[in-house]
Amino acid sequence: MKKMSITAGTPAVSENDAALATPFVRCLARLIRAQDTYGSQDGVSDAQLLAHFIVTEQQRREIPIIGDPDPDVMLRLNIFYTAVGLAIEARTGLVASPTMMISHEGFGRVLLTTGRLVVFSKTVRDVHRFGFATLRKLAEAGAKLVDDAIAAIEAYPEVARA
Amino acid sequence: MKKMSITAGTPAVSENDAALATPFVRCLARLIRAQDTYGSQDGVSDAQLLAHFIVTEQQRREIPIIGDPDPDVMLRLNIFYTAVGLAIEARTGLVASPTMMISHEGFGRVLLTTGRLVVFSKTVRDVHRFGFATLRKLAEAGAKLVDDAIAAIEAYPEVARA
Repeated sequence: MKKMSITAGTPAVSENDAALATPFVRCLARLIRAQDTYGSQDGVSDAQLLAHFIVTEQQRREIPIIGDPDPDVMLRLNIFYTAVGLAIEARTGLVASPTMMISHEGFGRVLLTTGRLVVFSKTVRDVHRFGFATLRKLAEAGAKLVDDAIAAIEAYPEVARA
Repeated sequence: MKKMSITAGTPAVSENDAALATPFVRCLARLIRAQDTYGSQDGVSDAQLLAHFIVTEQQRREIPIIGDPDPDVMLRLNIFYTAVGLAIEARTGLVASPTMMISHEGFGRVLLTTGRLVVFSKTVRDVHRFGFATLRKLAEAGAKLVDDAIAAIEAYPEVARA
């Protein structure tokens, strides 16, 4: 059962609740819970579970981009794109798997492929600072990636199934 | 100018020379020389330059697959697939770039993409032991990858240019 967000009482609540109800964010939260092998976060709300994905502009600036990105950030990046893949699969029935190649400097490339089709390709940099300003922005970014990928699959259906 | 191979005089010479003359192997040798920033291998023959890619069955068995793959092996894996990409580009005019995601256990995935098309996709394991039994096998493996990729590009030309 979804508990009240820790930000209850502030104007952002309804916006956060709306974001939490979107298919992509629900998929992301489910994936995080699926990887929580020992159930240590069973009592935690979705909003708290996703709190690490929220990086405000102020926080962003404070994260150094020197040295290796934090392993936790790498994990979040992986979970985010895996969730995009799962959401694509939920709507199209086609498995979309992420392939990430990130250097020690936090620079690299993320690909999502289904069959022989590249449904998403992005050059990423400053991975150290990966995150979204608000839960709504996270929801919008994820939904857009899923929509764009599905549009690509619809444009080249036989390649996506090759 | 190509010098005599260090194996001159053995029956494998003409086979090696034939392999060294193939477009893929020439491309691979050129790429290795291009990355030799200080020209420390300028006096070395192509056969010697490619010697590290040759791993006999006996040597293979002796390489442990525990722990991280050697950084030199990772570099060779990268150069090999980059050479495949360059050979594809030489024949089609389309840039084919490799994306590799290899775990610390030497297991992972290699993708080659042009535009929105996946021209090559392979799950790799025991990367620690990456290599080819002979120079001819190296030449054949590279040429086959290039041919298969070009067949895929010809099958889906508009996707490869998307």
